[in-house]
Amino acid sequence: MEQWLKDDERLDYLLAEDLRIIQSPSVFSFSLDAVLLARFAYVPMKRGKIIDICSGNGAIPLFLSARTNVEIIGVELQERLADMATRSVQFNNLTNQITIVEADVKGIARELGSEKFDVVTCNPPYFPAHEASEKNLKEHLAIARHEIHLTLDEAVQSASELLKQGGKAAFVHRPGRLLDIVTAMRANRLEPKRIRFVYPKEGKEANTLLIEGIKDGKPDLKILAPLYVYGDDGKYTQEVKEMLYGKE
Amino acid sequence: MEQWLKDDERLDYLLAEDLRIIQSPSVFSFSLDAVLLARFAYVPMKRGKIIDICSGNGAIPLFLSARTNVEIIGVELQERLADMATRSVQFNNLTNQITIVEADVKGIARELGSEKFDVVTCNPPYFPAHEASEKNLKEHLAIARHEIHLTLDEAVQSASELLKQGGKAAFVHRPGRLLDIVTAMRANRLEPKRIRFVYPKEGKEANTLLIEGIKDGKPDLKILAPLYVYGDDGKYTQEVKEMLYGKE
Repeated sequence: MEQWLKDDERLDYLLAEDLRIIQSPSVFSFSLDAVLLARFAYVPMKRGKIIDICSGNGAIPLFLSARTNVEIIGVELQERLADMATRSVQFNNLTNQITIVEADVKGIARELGSEKFDVVTCNPPYFPAHEASEKNLKEHLAIARHEIHLTLDEAVQSASELLKQGGKAAFVHRPGRLLDIVTAMRANRLEPKRIRFVYPKEGKEANTLLIEGIKDGKPDLKILAPLYVYGDDGKYTQEVKEMLYGKE
Repeated sequence: MEQWLKDDERLDYLLAEDLRIIQSPSVFSFSLDAVLLARFAYVPMKRGKIIDICSGNGAIPLFLSARTNVEIIGVELQERLADMATRSVQFNNLTNQITIVEADVKGIARELGSEKFDVVTCNPPYFPAHEASEKNLKEHLAIARHEIHLTLDEAVQSASELLKQGGKAAFVHRPGRLLDIVTAMRANRLEPKRIRFVYPKEGKEANTLLIEGIKDGKPDLKILAPLYVYGDDGKYTQEVKEMLYGKE
């Protein structure tokens, strides 16, 4: 096992998918948002191509590989994170299905092809760049979480450039950025079609936003049933439990 | 009682408010959306001025009068509906607090004063004008429900013109129009601050949208906890029951 891991990395289980993933507390670990996005996104079963941008340590491509047989590409800017993702793909014997590309998401369609993909998923950096320096985060985490090298507008633009007409782009973000993301999507020909808000528990405000748009789609937005993460007992709800641990 | 009523009108109870309202199945009856908006909207208790535009038979001014002592104006285009609203105000002895103005909502600030109001509420016509003729609705209902004499953009513009800086505008609409309403609000200096989606029951898509914006407010949108109308037993939820019938 040790030959797969560097520094403080560890090999975590993705229980619902029966896969393993390389993580590091000091460099990058995926969050629940990646799990939620991978379940929310439309995924073709047999034909088509999926690309995940801002892939981090490759959690979303790994999750998606359990739901489909189609080719999946993950794009990650940071060398260290792309390397972790690549090793996880190798460890799981998924090199035939998943390819990790170390590259800047900005302008990535020039490299990988314009309008070639059926689905784009994206869990972008959430927080304004100016907050990063104040918090003095470690660099890998800062880049992954803050809009330092990629703004929301740039992420949405890249997603649209990659997508075929009629293709679907799914994003996860904070509800406070709802207006920014729908504005950016419409400006880039991605018509919002499905939104699901995620609430930490009943009676609380939403803390996560899942949104899917169709390239050149017709306006017809649906607000799906809410998703609650925790029940009154402080434990994961059945729906989230199944996402994380699989059906019993 | 009869001298208050015309044709097929009847005098319904507003139980939670202990008021009566004149309605008519062939002309206009208020919907649950009016109840939800009147509860969702911020209401000053002692000082300020409230205006309800697209007032119909005056349901929202009547509901609000039970929550505040400040002056309330209701604006309604249709003579017959404004007349029903005026008679309801008189019947409830609320002529000191509520004034019904029969006027076009378009450009109403020129008549009633620009930036004079602290709160605007608006339950506008929901449906595209072109759907009205197909359905061959009775004229009063068609005008109240369809964007025949007032579009969503025009309603939002009028609300903004009436509102003081820092004042609040609250609307109820269909979730499918979320992007249109937030775009119109931002174009008219109303920054969306609170959204609450209303679901017919758990597990279903939202069918109603409540949204409040602040004139010249800073971006900081909150998605409130969902509101469910019916429980699994097919009866109103406790929250809706209390809105309609009051606390037991």
